[in-house]
Amino acid sequence: MKALPAFIEGYGEVRPFTGRTERPPTAPRAAVERRVARPGGQKLLAGLPEAFDACGLRDGAVLSFHHHLRNGDAVLNRVLDAAAEHGLQSLTVAASSIFPVHAPLVRHIERGVVSRIVTSYVSGPVADAIAAGRLPTPVVMQTHGGRAMSIETGRLLIDAAFVAAPTADAQGNLAGAVGPAACGPLGYAMVDAAHARHVVAVTDHFVDFPALPIDIPQGEVDFVVRVNSIGDAAGIPSGTTRPTDDPVGLHIASLAARAIEASGLLGPDFSFQTGAGGISLAVARDLAQVMAAQRVQGSFAAGGVTGALCEMLEAGLFRSIFDVQCFDLQAVRSYRDDPRHVSMSASVYANPFGRGALVDQLKTMVLGAAEIDLDFNVNVTMGANGRILGGSGGHADTADGAELALVTTRLGSAAGPKLVREVACVTTPGSTIDLVVTEAGIAVPPRRRDLAERLARAGLPLKPLEELQRLAERQHPCAPAAPREGRIVGVVEYRDGSVIDLLRAA
Amino acid sequence: MKALPAFIEGYGEVRPFTGRTERPPTAPRAAVERRVARPGGQKLLAGLPEAFDACGLRDGAVLSFHHHLRNGDAVLNRVLDAAAEHGLQSLTVAASSIFPVHAPLVRHIERGVVSRIVTSYVSGPVADAIAAGRLPTPVVMQTHGGRAMSIETGRLLIDAAFVAAPTADAQGNLAGAVGPAACGPLGYAMVDAAHARHVVAVTDHFVDFPALPIDIPQGEVDFVVRVNSIGDAAGIPSGTTRPTDDPVGLHIASLAARAIEASGLLGPDFSFQTGAGGISLAVARDLAQVMAAQRVQGSFAAGGVTGALCEMLEAGLFRSIFDVQCFDLQAVRSYRDDPRHVSMSASVYANPFGRGALVDQLKTMVLGAAEIDLDFNVNVTMGANGRILGGSGGHADTADGAELALVTTRLGSAAGPKLVREVACVTTPGSTIDLVVTEAGIAVPPRRRDLAERLARAGLPLKPLEELQRLAERQHPCAPAAPREGRIVGVVEYRDGSVIDLLRAA
Repeated sequence: MKALPAFIEGYGEVRPFTGRTERPPTAPRAAVERRVARPGGQKLLAGLPEAFDACGLRDGAVLSFHHHLRNGDAVLNRVLDAAAEHGLQSLTVAASSIFPVHAPLVRHIERGVVSRIVTSYVSGPVADAIAAGRLPTPVVMQTHGGRAMSIETGRLLIDAAFVAAPTADAQGNLAGAVGPAACGPLGYAMVDAAHARHVVAVTDHFVDFPALPIDIPQGEVDFVVRVNSIGDAAGIPSGTTRPTDDPVGLHIASLAARAIEASGLLGPDFSFQTGAGGISLAVARDLAQVMAAQRVQGSFAAGGVTGALCEMLEAGLFRSIFDVQCFDLQAVRSYRDDPRHVSMSASVYANPFGRGALVDQLKTMVLGAAEIDLDFNVNVTMGANGRILGGSGGHADTADGAELALVTTRLGSAAGPKLVREVACVTTPGSTIDLVVTEAGIAVPPRRRDLAERLARAGLPLKPLEELQRLAERQHPCAPAAPREGRIVGVVEYRDGSVIDLLRAA
Repeated sequence: MKALPAFIEGYGEVRPFTGRTERPPTAPRAAVERRVARPGGQKLLAGLPEAFDACGLRDGAVLSFHHHLRNGDAVLNRVLDAAAEHGLQSLTVAASSIFPVHAPLVRHIERGVVSRIVTSYVSGPVADAIAAGRLPTPVVMQTHGGRAMSIETGRLLIDAAFVAAPTADAQGNLAGAVGPAACGPLGYAMVDAAHARHVVAVTDHFVDFPALPIDIPQGEVDFVVRVNSIGDAAGIPSGTTRPTDDPVGLHIASLAARAIEASGLLGPDFSFQTGAGGISLAVARDLAQVMAAQRVQGSFAAGGVTGALCEMLEAGLFRSIFDVQCFDLQAVRSYRDDPRHVSMSASVYANPFGRGALVDQLKTMVLGAAEIDLDFNVNVTMGANGRILGGSGGHADTADGAELALVTTRLGSAAGPKLVREVACVTTPGSTIDLVVTEAGIAVPPRRRDLAERLARAGLPLKPLEELQRLAERQHPCAPAAPREGRIVGVVEYRDGSVIDLLRAA
């Protein structure tokens, strides 16, 4: 690993990543002082300024947000606009993810309204502003599980959690499955609501008591604010929503599905997660055919859930879906209608210090990558050009947890090779990756000789990663980027809260 | 109020009841140090001794239990038998309720295995042993809401919560709605599981992952132990399960239903809770007819849920049921099958220091009584003869919360008058009671003049409570019991944790 400073201004002491998830024998669930509701008291407030006052928010407060509406979310912008108008300064934004739609946050950074960001994913104008050094403190990039861990253990204390609620009642029961901006389960918000000092629901669908089905119960909500729109559910399926039809992508997907079949993991304990990329969706489709042909019913699919997984549930290929957030509207409908499609909090999903996370039960995870290096390290955080691309989300969590963490990737793109000698940023350590599937062959790390043997027996085209990398470099020549040595603009935490890498300005 | 000592040996400092629920502006949700699960680690243990060791239980530990299987529960006995064999001593049993089936606990008290009991209800041999002074410390009698408050705020720290799980999987997901001993929602256990240091699920229905529908998620469970039976669901409907057919009881029920109608509370915000006694069930039946005739659909029914409430839901008389525990098997089926019948934790049900409890939204609560005195104080804890009869459960919580807290009672029984000059024990303060309905008329406390006027206009037979009390004394003559002045065998806490009364040995 690269050397890390012992202390980073605006972040604090650095505990370096040790090469694996360090778990203490016990972990605290932090104390929190919470408001006691008065019988007959009104949770419904006139607006956000009233909520800020009711929460006693001051300069420097930590506000949290969740990203179930993804690139359709209107709540983060609305709350920060109101906070700016309210005169609040130096806020920390703890948002589970930040999308291009959150561009107005850049202005709040410039004006000092927001001085610190903790997130698991950031793309678009906010990412660019951070990479350009416009945020006065380094962005803290956590994994989804690391975020849950930080909130539960009290490393990240939230003064007020703002919950974008597709449906709410006057008592603060919140439902994600119904309403004009229905988004499905509120898995990230569940953790915020359970641990924040104050919880403010923001809703555009206020109903007579009770708001059913309840995702977050009234016992975790202090205030409710009505707005005309919490966002546009059409923004949930940002990016790809259907399988790739590109021949190279289809070939990779087919190899990946065959590798899963050959891994020996298919059976009644099989479980599966995949993202929403075009290749991932094609893997799911191919795998569904394999499972159907073999009459396998697996245990669960998990995620980040797409319609592809819901169709596998409906086809009887899994007994259940565990869902922390929906990736498309088909998944939202499935969550609403199918009792086998259940919600989970981000803590149950991925908290490494919890009492058992779903990711740690996963048999197979299909991952994407911006870059992979010769140590199998994966980067989905920062491009060689210095642009922030996103971040871990659940990438590092699921790779660590899954028995078979499989990365699908093309050898390269117009921007250059995707298989590189050294990644610009380590999001997910190579020690947790079991398989890299490219159009030119499949690479298995040396520690998974068992897996290599199974794949070889199945006739799959195994190649040393070095060979694939050289090929990638040849096919996608690109001048190597200069190492970035400017000031630290981001601290990349691994799921256990250790620091695995830094983001630097040019 | 009676004078109280400032300190009680074996209990601690006494904060006396002030006449109303004292709510601080904020309350802590206590910190707790919890076990971190290892990926691939086994939650399923060979037996209870292994669970005791895994939890690190020692003499003096606090073990919690919940009473969803009521008089059919086998888990409390099984765990304490195993604890005794394991050599554990001086345990605190924090059981949400204790029933006659728990008679073996008496032996554990005698042998020093159990030296302290915190509960919300105790009847049968354990109650008799406590009243006889056989427990070395005073039993702490809490309300259901006070128990949730104590656990959440850290007044009551639980070392290990034992959850009787009708269905469980290897990861510790627990379901109450299915399995041979299905009991419905696990509302009391939810609070224990969320706050105990260790959580042990005990199940007789171990299923492949996942156990659906999940009442308690795997993130709150450390260990799972399989036993051949967690109890007999036939023991859930202990006591009455159908409306009274006694003419006096029917007359009281009819008056109560007419009083609710006359109260002006029926409407789209109407909500209702009632117990499982014969008169209560007759009130529900009569009220259903009134609501159907008036085409009223209320907001919710709550409880402790009986089939009578489920039939009202099915008939469209309520939009929802909020259920902390089922009182009969019809309710269990309704919880399993009807998505409008939802679970709530004991904290959402009744915690006075929470962010809004259902009981504090209740429009009407129908309560029973062992005794009522001239101040409208109600006793459901200890008879004049010194027998412990049960305890508050949710009695004091719902009376405090409900806009119309209505007590139905006969004037007296073979044991003597039920309307008395002074109750042997104050369970529920008269300041929270709005109506007493007897076969000889209805009494309204002076502070509810508004209600008296409505009832009078409806032609209901109002009588001063003093007159009803004198009548009760005449019709049910009985030598007054000698005041009990022996040692303190019980401390009765109000829902805010203050002490409202004491139980003394003869």
